[in-house]
Amino acid sequence: MHDEFAKIEWLKTRFELDAKPEGVVVGIGDDAAVFDFGNRPTVITVDTQVEGVHFRGDMISPRDLGRRAMVAAASDVWAMAAMPSASTIALTLPPDLSEQQFRELIEGLAGAARLVGARVIGGNLSRGEALSVTTTVFGLPIGRPLTRAGAHPGDAVYVTGTVGAAALGLAILDTKRTEIEHAERFIERWRRPPINGHAVKTLAAVATAAVDLSDGCLQDLQHLCKASGVGARIYADALPTAPGHSTTSEALGLNPLDLAHAGGEDYELLFTAPASSD
Amino acid sequence: MHDEFAKIEWLKTRFELDAKPEGVVVGIGDDAAVFDFGNRPTVITVDTQVEGVHFRGDMISPRDLGRRAMVAAASDVWAMAAMPSASTIALTLPPDLSEQQFRELIEGLAGAARLVGARVIGGNLSRGEALSVTTTVFGLPIGRPLTRAGAHPGDAVYVTGTVGAAALGLAILDTKRTEIEHAERFIERWRRPPINGHAVKTLAAVATAAVDLSDGCLQDLQHLCKASGVGARIYADALPTAPGHSTTSEALGLNPLDLAHAGGEDYELLFTAPASSD
Repeated sequence: MHDEFAKIEWLKTRFELDAKPEGVVVGIGDDAAVFDFGNRPTVITVDTQVEGVHFRGDMISPRDLGRRAMVAAASDVWAMAAMPSASTIALTLPPDLSEQQFRELIEGLAGAARLVGARVIGGNLSRGEALSVTTTVFGLPIGRPLTRAGAHPGDAVYVTGTVGAAALGLAILDTKRTEIEHAERFIERWRRPPINGHAVKTLAAVATAAVDLSDGCLQDLQHLCKASGVGARIYADALPTAPGHSTTSEALGLNPLDLAHAGGEDYELLFTAPASSD
Repeated sequence: MHDEFAKIEWLKTRFELDAKPEGVVVGIGDDAAVFDFGNRPTVITVDTQVEGVHFRGDMISPRDLGRRAMVAAASDVWAMAAMPSASTIALTLPPDLSEQQFRELIEGLAGAARLVGARVIGGNLSRGEALSVTTTVFGLPIGRPLTRAGAHPGDAVYVTGTVGAAALGLAILDTKRTEIEHAERFIERWRRPPINGHAVKTLAAVATAAVDLSDGCLQDLQHLCKASGVGARIYADALPTAPGHSTTSEALGLNPLDLAHAGGEDYELLFTAPASSD
């Protein structure tokens, strides 16, 4: 049980979520949990960004970090075909975080909360050695909550945007090769994940299953396939990548295809739906 | 703006919670937030325990840490006269946490979740340098949510248990004076906060305002008074302390009264209600 996925499988048994208990519409293991508080199912997701693990202070401004934490959590709600309605934030603040940095972090969180519609209703402040932002986002499904289970044989696989761009941006930051062509654009894709709320109505209408792209296209698709009991075939030349993806990858000495199928943190929505005829 | 309370006041303005927006029944600054997801108000609270800040690894077992994190968060829900119904957990796991310690932490969380009725429905696992447990607990108010505002002049102040015992236990652990009489009992009060769910019906029936005792009796009462626009008079000899409180405090060279009014983390419920005639 050394990886996160094995841990999660074990957690399901410990929290007795294998059988669906009263109130639990969707339990551990999907993009978000869905709980019925007595009247209407509420989608709940929690995401943590830890300095030194998910980001380094020199890679992202406090404002973009706040925005990113909120959007990454909202992305899980969108993937359930739900619209964010509220959020809570738990911050661990290190002693070397300045007043100005704290304020920018909050402005980033508050601005993103407005963008995604997840009003911040509460939270917690704590001291600690490393900056960490835990964002819990609540949402209401448009129709039935859309899970990772539900894809059918014959469905096509869609993505709301490009894959691999965020990982490429992170690689540029990591290697400090910011002189490369398109560098700023790819860095932005890592720093500022997309707002995909506009896609949720479509997902609710046509999708059979969905997952948000945080671990990488191939791995997230595998989660969806496993939950749905289906397989999938991915054509390398059909992977949607951003303009300049190949040349920029190669300038860094990276394989464009590896980045596209394994690069994480795009926070686009991958979903399955009956193949369209066009 | 150097202390947590000033930060929270500023946060209220940034998240636009001064005016009550749609859906927000109680916003930032009470024990928990209350949000109406379209049908019934839901109480939401979040609490973080960080290694090196809230506890040291040699002071508490992983199992008791898990229990403590869940009960401390549930305590905020009880203070709103609500019963916990669900929870999410975000864990930051350091590389030196063993498999066995991880499992015990989860068992502690799962056991406490059953005790308080807050079924764990989701969460997040993250790596990090320091162990941290962020617990979000959701609950349903029995009647109207009970806030810190609402105490009237003439009300009496009640506490569900004793004050200062947890701080005394922590002081014993800190000084490693475990040979002192009653040491184990006070240590237990810090490690295993009380389950106060049984008091919630009474609170809902009679209390005019309530707060959970996390910062210390006097400070938490001040929060309640400020929110209610009232003052309070506390009689030193009426503070409810545990048997052996004075002798054990003095054996450590500590002032029993200081511990009773300023010692935090008792996680008892302090509430105001019309003075009873007996």
